Amino acid sequence: MEKKLTLPERVTICEVAPRDGFQSINEFIPTENKLEIIRKLAATGITSLEITSFVHPRAIPQLKDAEEVVRTVINELDGIDVRALVPNLRGAERAFGAGVRKLKTMLSATDSHSLSNANATVKDSQEKQAPIFEYVARENIEVMGSISVAFGCPFEGLVPVERLVEIVGRYDAADVREISLADTTGMAQPKQVFDTLEVLKTEFPHITYSMHFHNTRGMALANTLAALQQGVTLYDSSIAGLGGCPYAPGATGNVSTEDLAHMLAEMDIETGTDLEALIAAAKDVRDLLGVPGDSYMLKAGPSCRLHEEAPTGQKKVK
Amino acid sequence: MEKKLTLPERVTICEVAPRDGFQSINEFIPTENKLEIIRKLAATGITSLEITSFVHPRAIPQLKDAEEVVRTVINELDGIDVRALVPNLRGAERAFGAGVRKLKTMLSATDSHSLSNANATVKDSQEKQAPIFEYVARENIEVMGSISVAFGCPFEGLVPVERLVEIVGRYDAADVREISLADTTGMAQPKQVFDTLEVLKTEFPHITYSMHFHNTRGMALANTLAALQQGVTLYDSSIAGLGGCPYAPGATGNVSTEDLAHMLAEMDIETGTDLEALIAAAKDVRDLLGVPGDSYMLKAGPSCRLHEEAPTGQKKVK
Repeated sequence: MEKKLTLPERVTICEVAPRDGFQSINEFIPTENKLEIIRKLAATGITSLEITSFVHPRAIPQLKDAEEVVRTVINELDGIDVRALVPNLRGAERAFGAGVRKLKTMLSATDSHSLSNANATVKDSQEKQAPIFEYVARENIEVMGSISVAFGCPFEGLVPVERLVEIVGRYDAADVREISLADTTGMAQPKQVFDTLEVLKTEFPHITYSMHFHNTRGMALANTLAALQQGVTLYDSSIAGLGGCPYAPGATGNVSTEDLAHMLAEMDIETGTDLEALIAAAKDVRDLLGVPGDSYMLKAGPSCRLHEEAPTGQKKVK
Repeated sequence: MEKKLTLPERVTICEVAPRDGFQSINEFIPTENKLEIIRKLAATGITSLEITSFVHPRAIPQLKDAEEVVRTVINELDGIDVRALVPNLRGAERAFGAGVRKLKTMLSATDSHSLSNANATVKDSQEKQAPIFEYVARENIEVMGSISVAFGCPFEGLVPVERLVEIVGRYDAADVREISLADTTGMAQPKQVFDTLEVLKTEFPHITYSMHFHNTRGMALANTLAALQQGVTLYDSSIAGLGGCPYAPGATGNVSTEDLAHMLAEMDIETGTDLEALIAAAKDVRDLLGVPGDSYMLKAGPSCRLHEEAPTGQKKVK
């Protein structure tokens, strides 16, 4: 009997550059530039967008204009599932007040990362999230829960799957039905991704999982292939690979939207995105922000772009 | 019933930098530097090495010292399966004369790439190979056959699997039982790799397949995962990612040995290599050749290298 890779026919890419990418750039990006980039992204066919984070301006000054960004552009984003990251009740109220209708909460899988990232233990973070969940239930707002360093922690190493079962269980008890598994520092490997999803899907079959891969060690697309084989249809990525790795300066961070969309398109998996538009947007973003950009599409272009003739002086090179 | 990724327990990595990498660097690398690099590679635990190419010195002057390199170092490479690339009978005789006991022949899957790379059609290349196969049969020398641009051609695009069946059939008729499928310009995608191997394994179950992936579009490790799921245990890679992409200057070429070894090690697949030794060798090679080097291990290091504390000024960055 013929063996086949079982992959979904359609996948949703959530563009996270306006949150994960912008906050990783130390200088404040002028609001009009943020808006220009969001509008360019909206024109690429993406159907999901993490637009900003409603954290305290002192914590992440790069995103202090969150309200203005959302209020200005939200009504232009028809057909796009817009979400914002919120660290606490205040953030949730600000996001909803600005017009965001889907909120993302976040915590870390380990105490060491949680303390370094949020100055709170995992347990304290969970208690801080409780008022958010009461609020969204009262206001009937869509919510999702994210788990940072879900596969590996830069301080503690491998995260046991039991830890994830425990954390997902807490989210589940709070009626959170979409869980984002974030490989925040690019430590996940494909077998681990596949096996972890097997355990979580068995324990919580009613929960929808989304994947947030970083390409720090080059495995983001291999991890995506493993998650696809588990039927996962929700993937985060960042245009031009915006969003570095805080623990290894200069290293790759978020997998780039254009590289992810390219692999999916090559495998005939529908994403609704226009690859050439994504590559053009990546170039614009790179130029607008004055960053190098980090994607294979920016360096080599898509497989389908063929050459007329061999480059001179390259004969005999295999 | 629990779903599992079926992967081999052990994989052989063939280091191809001394051939694929050295020939891609325009300036001639002094013989003593080539020997130093080969000795460093031999000390990393690799068990397979493509040591050079016995092509005409005018075609690839970078490898004009092939005999001297092999004669000097071959006896130091105990336990390493050493092979050399040979384009014709003369090259085969030179390689065997110098002490090489495994020869690799090569042709392209498409006429356009074959003409640009070897100034001959695929059919002409196959006829040029016939004397090599008579020679190795007579002298009882191990031989393998490689297929360049096996998955995609930069001039013709997607290569139909029927084309590969035809070419593998020709190799098979010449008693070649090991076939290297080379994604020379990084156009393969995981589903295609999986499905292609399914067809070839069904048509030629007695043939052993080895994979030669380039990471031009970031899919080399995803393609490796697909091939692993088809039971393939032979993979080529190049230390520090030496070996560029002739059709997209500046783009990534061969997948790096250290990134491949890292993913395999993380998945508990035995390769016999010492990852830290590979990363150290990659740094030495980079410095010795004065090239930047291109691997995630050089930028970020392995997942198992943990941090003592959060980098300053990086608090709150997810």
